[in-house]
Amino acid sequence: MLVVQKYGGTSVGTLERIENVASRVAKAREEGKDLVVVVSAMSGETNKLIEYAHHFSKNPSKREMDMLLSSGERVTAALLAIALNEMGHKTIALTGRQAGIKTDDTHTYARIESINTERLQEEISNGNIIIVAGFQGINHNGEVTTLGRGGSDLSAVALAGALKADACEIYSDVDGIYTTDPRIEPKAKKLDYISYDEMLELSSLGAKVLQNRSVELAKKMGVKIIAKSSFSDGEGTVISDEKGDSMEEVLVSGVALDKNQARVSLRGVTDRPGIAAEIFTKLANENINVDMIIQNASENGTTNLGFTVPQSEIAQAKEAMESFDHDVDGADYDEGVAKVSIVGVGMKSHSGVAASAFTALAENGVNIEMISTSEIKVSMVIDEKFSELAVRVLHEVYGLDK
Amino acid sequence: MLVVQKYGGTSVGTLERIENVASRVAKAREEGKDLVVVVSAMSGETNKLIEYAHHFSKNPSKREMDMLLSSGERVTAALLAIALNEMGHKTIALTGRQAGIKTDDTHTYARIESINTERLQEEISNGNIIIVAGFQGINHNGEVTTLGRGGSDLSAVALAGALKADACEIYSDVDGIYTTDPRIEPKAKKLDYISYDEMLELSSLGAKVLQNRSVELAKKMGVKIIAKSSFSDGEGTVISDEKGDSMEEVLVSGVALDKNQARVSLRGVTDRPGIAAEIFTKLANENINVDMIIQNASENGTTNLGFTVPQSEIAQAKEAMESFDHDVDGADYDEGVAKVSIVGVGMKSHSGVAASAFTALAENGVNIEMISTSEIKVSMVIDEKFSELAVRVLHEVYGLDK
Repeated sequence: MLVVQKYGGTSVGTLERIENVASRVAKAREEGKDLVVVVSAMSGETNKLIEYAHHFSKNPSKREMDMLLSSGERVTAALLAIALNEMGHKTIALTGRQAGIKTDDTHTYARIESINTERLQEEISNGNIIIVAGFQGINHNGEVTTLGRGGSDLSAVALAGALKADACEIYSDVDGIYTTDPRIEPKAKKLDYISYDEMLELSSLGAKVLQNRSVELAKKMGVKIIAKSSFSDGEGTVISDEKGDSMEEVLVSGVALDKNQARVSLRGVTDRPGIAAEIFTKLANENINVDMIIQNASENGTTNLGFTVPQSEIAQAKEAMESFDHDVDGADYDEGVAKVSIVGVGMKSHSGVAASAFTALAENGVNIEMISTSEIKVSMVIDEKFSELAVRVLHEVYGLDK
Repeated sequence: MLVVQKYGGTSVGTLERIENVASRVAKAREEGKDLVVVVSAMSGETNKLIEYAHHFSKNPSKREMDMLLSSGERVTAALLAIALNEMGHKTIALTGRQAGIKTDDTHTYARIESINTERLQEEISNGNIIIVAGFQGINHNGEVTTLGRGGSDLSAVALAGALKADACEIYSDVDGIYTTDPRIEPKAKKLDYISYDEMLELSSLGAKVLQNRSVELAKKMGVKIIAKSSFSDGEGTVISDEKGDSMEEVLVSGVALDKNQARVSLRGVTDRPGIAAEIFTKLANENINVDMIIQNASENGTTNLGFTVPQSEIAQAKEAMESFDHDVDGADYDEGVAKVSIVGVGMKSHSGVAASAFTALAENGVNIEMISTSEIKVSMVIDEKFSELAVRVLHEVYGLDK
């Protein structure tokens, strides 16, 4: 049985924690598993290096940033290998390059293009536990590249896919995926199972256990992810497309909240072909990240157009919209909004899921400003002050605390 | 004009100091020089990583130590490149691997086998300043290797040799090679010039500016080294085989002191063929580093054999000598000794240099316990308490303060 494990920065944040990780890896080894272990930099290290770089330049060259930032994971990988060797387990540490991870040329946000598993297979055959420095690879010119935020998860999933591993265990300081944020709703329950699609919706909405890119890759390569805590012994949450154990599929798996939202509403937009394209091209060119987009049916030759952006980008968005003054009657900008979403594959086959959400919120006096739905998600923009209330109401409506 | 510069750990020990180094590199660039700059890890970083490793193992696997320790130089290289780019100078940072440095398989103490200069030449042609992470290379299997203590000097000299650079400037916190340690003899003078051979004798004797391996390599490849301070603007000391400016060659260039010495004297050693070989093979097998070795002429079928070892290895040496009890009448072990040496190519052609040393020491009441001479060096083992006195006396005898 071949398992890829990944330990995040918090899990390897101190020498004692690295020792704890070594014990966990050793235990899995003693159970007879073949192991490839991907590690992040010790927590704080990457930020320290970024600060160092910013001491010299506000906009450091990306190629050099990759050389700089890739060093932290190498340190952790080497230390973990040393610890495991000391415990009597044959272990070898590999850099991204040595693990065969080839990426494209996009420094600081590279995409994995391929993994040459020759060396990995050889070391497994030699009876070695393999520790891989996460977050990094090399491009076709031999330049060191890094994979962007959450890159070590991506390394782990890609390695699991390439090696056809039985599972990819992602360890962090939380013990799985919850129905909602337990800090908001103490009745939140850990899920035993969640599908890739649900996880994708949840992660983009603020559940920060796994980055979207990793889940997308896992879905594409059919990698079974298990999200676990490195500080306890729980079963964690399985993320895959296998059916869960429950006979009846649940309607809604979780409730997500994103408070970092600002709403832009454009009223009386001239309804001529290409106007929406112009507006969003303008926003894209200004590097403003647009999340929800809603356009109502046209009326009297004008339409209403709404979208949300991160709160930090609202001033920029406002400025960008000025060039459309002749096409727009009026505009509202509201920083005080939040997006609350319900996610679940069960929605696909059940009508009325959205309706119960709207009803429950209305009964609790929460006004809904914008609505956007997909097959497995309903997102609602509301006044930010109702955020926690809305999460609790929705959590209860769908019986997630049961 | 192509110059290789090397900045040690102290010179890049803080972000401010890296900035200072960037200014120096920029200045050289503005003078029209092509530059390859080799950097060490920020001072303290390597020791921190070694401590980390020792937290897990007293004897960490050397391959993983290399992966661990090579990270510090990469950080400095990337940061310096970022700083120079910010100053408007096109700069690229390269790892040992990317700089084409190929070594043998001896992890933690690898020897450079070759340098493929293709990438370096290309980057120079592209108008880039090149920053190279010192102390590291890769072996033929693509494993990261490190070059041992003083390894960054070695990287610099090897690169200068391979690129046929006009000079290799080695920057540290001292402004050159002195006639003796200025902390002992304040009248010590900086030398403008010293030959490779003299430098070899001085460095092995305690003048810690340059490691022997680097000087040996420089001699072999004909690399002109200039030892300078990164904190001031002095001319430094040229180390080469070119003639200095002075018409008349000086007899003695410097006086070196090594206090980390312990003396072993074996009396009445059976003078049979192979006995010395047996003794020193035994010591070598126990990894005891022997420095001076002196054997007197045989008398009545026995001989006296003396040698020195580092003070930390005297107990081990004593134990090793026990197996020769039947061949030896008696043994003295003295930890309280020091080795003082005078070095100078001028000795080759002048007799009487050694005699003046012995006379001067005798006149000052310093008893000489062992003497060893080479063509350009006279070393004397004396009671440790006379160390500083001996250095000052010899410094004056040869007019080094003039």
